[in-house]
Amino acid sequence: MELLPLLDAQSVEPLYSQLYRHIRGEIEAGRLRAGSRLPSVRKLAAHLGISRTPVEDAYQQLLAEGYAASRPRSGITVQIYEPEFSRGFYRTSSAEPGRKESPRLVLPAKKADPSIPVHAGEKTDWIDFSYGDIDLSHFPFPLWKKLLGSCFSPDHRDLFRYGDPLGESGFREALSDYAYRARAVICPPERIVVGAGTHHSTEQICRLLQRTPYSAAHSPIAVEQSMSDGIAAIMRQHGYRLVPLRLEPDGIRIEDLYDSGARIVYTTPSHQFPHGMVMSIGKRRRLLNWAADVGGLIVEDDYDGEFRYAGLPIPSLQGLDAAANCVVYMGTFSRALAPAFRLSYTALPPALAIAAKAALHPFDRLASPLHQKTLELFMAGGHMQRHIRKMRSVYQRKMAALLAAVRRCLEPRFRVSGGGAGLHVLLETDDGRDEAQLIRLAEAAGVRVYPTSVYRIDPHRGESASILLGFGGLDERRIEEGVRRLADVWKR
Amino acid sequence: MELLPLLDAQSVEPLYSQLYRHIRGEIEAGRLRAGSRLPSVRKLAAHLGISRTPVEDAYQQLLAEGYAASRPRSGITVQIYEPEFSRGFYRTSSAEPGRKESPRLVLPAKKADPSIPVHAGEKTDWIDFSYGDIDLSHFPFPLWKKLLGSCFSPDHRDLFRYGDPLGESGFREALSDYAYRARAVICPPERIVVGAGTHHSTEQICRLLQRTPYSAAHSPIAVEQSMSDGIAAIMRQHGYRLVPLRLEPDGIRIEDLYDSGARIVYTTPSHQFPHGMVMSIGKRRRLLNWAADVGGLIVEDDYDGEFRYAGLPIPSLQGLDAAANCVVYMGTFSRALAPAFRLSYTALPPALAIAAKAALHPFDRLASPLHQKTLELFMAGGHMQRHIRKMRSVYQRKMAALLAAVRRCLEPRFRVSGGGAGLHVLLETDDGRDEAQLIRLAEAAGVRVYPTSVYRIDPHRGESASILLGFGGLDERRIEEGVRRLADVWKR
Repeated sequence: MELLPLLDAQSVEPLYSQLYRHIRGEIEAGRLRAGSRLPSVRKLAAHLGISRTPVEDAYQQLLAEGYAASRPRSGITVQIYEPEFSRGFYRTSSAEPGRKESPRLVLPAKKADPSIPVHAGEKTDWIDFSYGDIDLSHFPFPLWKKLLGSCFSPDHRDLFRYGDPLGESGFREALSDYAYRARAVICPPERIVVGAGTHHSTEQICRLLQRTPYSAAHSPIAVEQSMSDGIAAIMRQHGYRLVPLRLEPDGIRIEDLYDSGARIVYTTPSHQFPHGMVMSIGKRRRLLNWAADVGGLIVEDDYDGEFRYAGLPIPSLQGLDAAANCVVYMGTFSRALAPAFRLSYTALPPALAIAAKAALHPFDRLASPLHQKTLELFMAGGHMQRHIRKMRSVYQRKMAALLAAVRRCLEPRFRVSGGGAGLHVLLETDDGRDEAQLIRLAEAAGVRVYPTSVYRIDPHRGESASILLGFGGLDERRIEEGVRRLADVWKR
Repeated sequence: MELLPLLDAQSVEPLYSQLYRHIRGEIEAGRLRAGSRLPSVRKLAAHLGISRTPVEDAYQQLLAEGYAASRPRSGITVQIYEPEFSRGFYRTSSAEPGRKESPRLVLPAKKADPSIPVHAGEKTDWIDFSYGDIDLSHFPFPLWKKLLGSCFSPDHRDLFRYGDPLGESGFREALSDYAYRARAVICPPERIVVGAGTHHSTEQICRLLQRTPYSAAHSPIAVEQSMSDGIAAIMRQHGYRLVPLRLEPDGIRIEDLYDSGARIVYTTPSHQFPHGMVMSIGKRRRLLNWAADVGGLIVEDDYDGEFRYAGLPIPSLQGLDAAANCVVYMGTFSRALAPAFRLSYTALPPALAIAAKAALHPFDRLASPLHQKTLELFMAGGHMQRHIRKMRSVYQRKMAALLAAVRRCLEPRFRVSGGGAGLHVLLETDDGRDEAQLIRLAEAAGVRVYPTSVYRIDPHRGESASILLGFGGLDERRIEEGVRRLADVWKR
């Protein structure tokens, strides 16, 4: 037994997190080699004199991050690891969500209410699986109102002016801390730029790159073959050509990236949009190697990184970038809080942060200083962490209800992709019907579901139809009802 | 005596406004011809049996709008008028500001406080004549807080989502009404698009024009030879070439516009930025004629149209466009309320409004629905009109203090330009010193003043130095003190 972690049962850091960190450290230090087998949960628990649960949780996290792999009959084995990536995990004080908020993914689904009519009549009782919707029923309205109201004092008069083009300094300090705790982003306040949503942050980045070797004149942007249409439109508007990279189950095909000739890549490693895969630690490593090889720049869009349901959130790519010089990280509060505050942020590498001070014209100040201050106060009071934990468990239950309903009613004809994180999944089928047919059938049953072909960058059409279902704004009963209606009209 | 207005002393419309409207109507109808002389104030007052004040005020308004001109020894004469411009004035219910809020421009200046040291010592007591600053001491903080707080109710949950890409519908209705009352803009809610400040509105317009005959591929944009640098940068970023037009005391040189070959012109007719001239009614007419001649589009930036100090505000160019098809009007609340709400709006001609629905991607939703709703409620309660009236009188007093101090301390070496409106003036001199020298001298005295050369689009340098002084954020005592310091270091 090679594993001899010093576990401290008195620590604020949960046992599973201590164990996870220890094993990860051993892998990173090369003492646990690729291919070597980890002890079984039962054995390690007995060896350490602790219960099985923390061991299971630690293994789950290592699996989720790609440090280990699980294969039938060979148990859990260590994956290839290269030592330059020995940084980048969040403080343990925020590593608590694991236990209470991460029960097994599939909860027993509540029995659907038969009083809801399956088919809509004249006045359609729509069930809308729209992507952008979030659950506001748990938003702390009274607290937010109080904090926002506290800005209306004579001391805070400056909050009513234009504010700092890069974002309010207090807010940027809070963001630096939050990004580290929640997403393992390592970035001092001076290198953070506040935006009015991910699209605006994308614009800021494009503007910033204009007078650098990463301008549209110097390089196209390599992108995942399916991506946010809005972000693609903004990049094109700034003159960039987009080169699609094929997607594999663990993220973009790195060979395609080398072949692309691009020096910039845009990616959603924590939860690919829209397909939902997570980029493995191996791919992340290879992606950072690519950047080192070609002097490349990686734009990491972490649009819903807060909502991963199995184990801890996957830490950001930015935090793995030991030299902190090739990743531009974008985070947003449109999903974690609410879109109406129009707040996002970008963590820049040092060279670009210096350029930003000169290049970002005051006209880029689009985020309201009042909303910035309110979120700063919300974070300072420790409310943000609590809110994210709460919402993670809310969305996890919804996701579980959706997955259970799909299993019950739609499998095996339809497969789910992207069920481990975020507020949407894809339903895929090879039964010969295309997107448009399936969407039309759904509409006839009073259900709105969405196409994914609109997100494709390459002209190539997949053989299987792929339908997007967002569930953030629906409660569990409606989710189940919606899937039942789909099963009814989609059966052959 | 040709003037026989039916004046109603019982009306809510002030006498001067009734009289102004009557005379304007006579001019527009051709019954008062160009070159004909208006009766003297004394004669007309006696003829109508009213006091002189309303007659003086009515004449002042006609002069300000270019319907009449005043020349020494020939009195007040009617200017050339062509009849197609017979629309576009605001409802009389909002035409009240004239009386109480428009005392003579130059009020007796308060005596400066000698306790303030004229020269700054080690710890400089800066007086900053910065352009973007506004006076927040009269902002209705408690009321705004209450209205904003009322959005935090379950009925208003939708205000926390993304909202309508064109802007919240209730807010657009309120804007349609406000723009008409305050700025004579005639535009139904369906043709209004909400933005997050003038710069964002400019971006929206540039995007909107992309697939029209006004795209950057089809036409450069003709602009005033000095203009907002941020707006110029955004237009260039969208691929537009800018062609400067020379400025005359009554606005752009229309001949230059015909020569430019451009089919789009960007202009600030209510108060040229930064020079401060008002475009005369004659020029406005010729500008609209140009648009009719070449199928041109006029972008009217009305950034501080609310703050005109002599008589009623100049109505917008948009309202004079009888066919309502060639003016894109931009308004902002950054000066009239506060920059932090990040709210602006664009009134579009019908053809562009139809294009907007298709072309404005959801990524253009940058204005917070919460701020939109709060301003809607503020307007619905009649508070906006009151606030503007209040602020007009506050800024008018500041302007008067500034003009009086300049007259006392800096004339005749320095001339003021743009003193009739807005929150800034220019100080011009031909004494051989350039901008940089004057700014350096001012800094040595603890006064920050600003260059205007940064706003020039054409490379041609004027012979006279021109220094920008914004006064919105300074009180009258500081304004006077600042001018005294300038006089001290600028004397030769």
